[in-house]
Amino acid sequence: MKILVINCGSSSLKYQLIDMTNEGVLAKGLCERIGIPGSKLVHKAEGKGEKTIEEDMSNHTIAIEHVMNVLVDPEFGVIKDTSEISAVGHRVLHAGTIYSDSIIVTEDVKKVVRDCFDLGPLHNPANLMGIEACEAAMPGVPNVAVFDTAFGMGMPEKAALYAIPTEYFEKYSIRRYGFHGTSHSYVSKETLKFCGLDEKNGKVIVCHLGNGASISASIGGKCVDTSMGLTPLEGLIMGTRSGDIDPAVVQFICDKEGKTVTEVIDILNKKSGILGMSGGISSDFRDVQKAQAEGNHLADTAIKAYIYRVAKYIGSYTAAMNGVDAIVFTAGVGENDKPIRSEICSYLGYLGVAIDEEANSKRGFDNMISKPESKVKVCVIPTNEELAIARETKALV
Amino acid sequence: MKILVINCGSSSLKYQLIDMTNEGVLAKGLCERIGIPGSKLVHKAEGKGEKTIEEDMSNHTIAIEHVMNVLVDPEFGVIKDTSEISAVGHRVLHAGTIYSDSIIVTEDVKKVVRDCFDLGPLHNPANLMGIEACEAAMPGVPNVAVFDTAFGMGMPEKAALYAIPTEYFEKYSIRRYGFHGTSHSYVSKETLKFCGLDEKNGKVIVCHLGNGASISASIGGKCVDTSMGLTPLEGLIMGTRSGDIDPAVVQFICDKEGKTVTEVIDILNKKSGILGMSGGISSDFRDVQKAQAEGNHLADTAIKAYIYRVAKYIGSYTAAMNGVDAIVFTAGVGENDKPIRSEICSYLGYLGVAIDEEANSKRGFDNMISKPESKVKVCVIPTNEELAIARETKALV
Repeated sequence: MKILVINCGSSSLKYQLIDMTNEGVLAKGLCERIGIPGSKLVHKAEGKGEKTIEEDMSNHTIAIEHVMNVLVDPEFGVIKDTSEISAVGHRVLHAGTIYSDSIIVTEDVKKVVRDCFDLGPLHNPANLMGIEACEAAMPGVPNVAVFDTAFGMGMPEKAALYAIPTEYFEKYSIRRYGFHGTSHSYVSKETLKFCGLDEKNGKVIVCHLGNGASISASIGGKCVDTSMGLTPLEGLIMGTRSGDIDPAVVQFICDKEGKTVTEVIDILNKKSGILGMSGGISSDFRDVQKAQAEGNHLADTAIKAYIYRVAKYIGSYTAAMNGVDAIVFTAGVGENDKPIRSEICSYLGYLGVAIDEEANSKRGFDNMISKPESKVKVCVIPTNEELAIARETKALV
Repeated sequence: MKILVINCGSSSLKYQLIDMTNEGVLAKGLCERIGIPGSKLVHKAEGKGEKTIEEDMSNHTIAIEHVMNVLVDPEFGVIKDTSEISAVGHRVLHAGTIYSDSIIVTEDVKKVVRDCFDLGPLHNPANLMGIEACEAAMPGVPNVAVFDTAFGMGMPEKAALYAIPTEYFEKYSIRRYGFHGTSHSYVSKETLKFCGLDEKNGKVIVCHLGNGASISASIGGKCVDTSMGLTPLEGLIMGTRSGDIDPAVVQFICDKEGKTVTEVIDILNKKSGILGMSGGISSDFRDVQKAQAEGNHLADTAIKAYIYRVAKYIGSYTAAMNGVDAIVFTAGVGENDKPIRSEICSYLGYLGVAIDEEANSKRGFDNMISKPESKVKVCVIPTNEELAIARETKALV
């Protein structure tokens, strides 16, 4: 069974074709500047190198047609006919309070994706365009929507609801949803296996530390809590996002600077986090760490605050579950930044966490970085959202 | 030495006269409706009962004059002459980033209190009026300002700074300050003594759970972190305040309801928390617990969310300090609500917390509620801000 995985942005379309017999990636690629002059498709096929196609892609339907063509291309293609594609799995951001699991796309499902445009204004419209483009290009092939919010829908009400008037949940579905759900779900389940934990009762904290960053607590792979909320702004300090902040700060900046609330939230999303705290050095960890090493005080504070926030969330989620069996790092920073992992864990001696610095210095595959005597297992497991989407899709079709 | 402790609100003035030889309260009282028709002063003197004076108090200076008069009143007074008052200690909300300790009031200090009107718009103007009223009524008697933000100023930068552009701290002093500082400082030091912990290294978490609620982590009585931030809105779920929330919720409600940011922050301060989550039942815990016992689902969720938030903060602050020696409950709910204490601690088995339910059922004085074998000591210590202010004042004059 071959499954096509699609992740659409407003002007982009990422894809992977995965052979589910061995979960191998046959081909992957990216269409950029869809609907903008200068569209191009960059395609990579296993063992066949890379091909760039520069052609007009005025909408997602045309982009998908180019993807279909390159997948069957005699030179760079990996299948003979698009009929070999059994199903398409779509990353869809938001299902509001309606779906807490992946689902085969029907008209009803498309309506829910559309109804949630206000909750996911940047992503849901693009996700729907991707679904409709695949329906047009591959009639009869099932599409599956894998929602980024599905994992967080498993949170109990005490974790999901804000302490605001109930009418705002009833009228506008304002609650905590959590994002990166597909990654948290995938990595937590992989961790249960990798650490040999009980499939139903294993307590896992996943630190998804990328440019966007979030953390989750789960028991037996089911979400107990997760740090992003109504939007991806809540929680950890990120590349450009503030994470948690006194909401009155929004009012204070509005008043002082004569800005609108929209402008201030935009600053909290795009100019804050590591970028803002470091005095504008960069949203990229490596740049800020370089400045830190050179003695830049703001860079030093930004990195320390980032680490401190992650450590506090791990502490918080350990209380949420009354204990933890495994802590796992994933995504760009989590998978690659050894000192950050080490420094986060330096707060956790009271839990009996003991890091093996030699193991922590390795990179790549699933890796146990705690010592055998550590009371909590600590590991690195690369995330793989595409594979997770493909597995969900396979399970449904 | 007798010290007068003053706590001014915009239309109120609370006072206590404390004899520092035994730290006993000689008299205390409250002036209400200052500057509003219907002003009154209710005065209670040790062993002399209560006296109510209903007279015009058009400003704080006149209110203080009434307080002076009643303190030397032949029937209800407790001193012969106001010259017996050695000093006045004032609760002052905000000292911005300027003072991290109590200080004898000078013109410079008054300027700082005035400069911080924007950071404490409801309290600082009233606090300054109280100081100036005492200067006028008792020339030559030293006034001491005890700042509610002083304790939080001890936080390291990684805990104090928001992950927002540095210019907002530089231009407007936007950072985390923390409030209830006098209470946290007092209770943490009392806890070190009561639990026999090392004065310099004892790790204490103070849960100040009143209608306003905050939590602090301190080592040797020095603040490591505390839950309120730029304003008292951040942190725990409170009677009417939301505590932590995705800042994007502010924008979302503004957009959906056509409200201004000021209106939404007002809702988060005054109509949220336990009151909002319970569907408007009450901001008083006892009312909401009664509804919970009667099977009201929203009330049940509100109470559970409240408890869960406190437990998560305890977990978070335990990580912040890499361990904890004592957890202490104080203020209205913390001192009196046995099931809440018990349920918060039910999350903390992983720390070796073991509650003695019989001890927990007692009320009143300093009380150890953990079992002897508990790895973390858990106790109840009533807060006493007035005594803390009097002690600070005595130490300075």
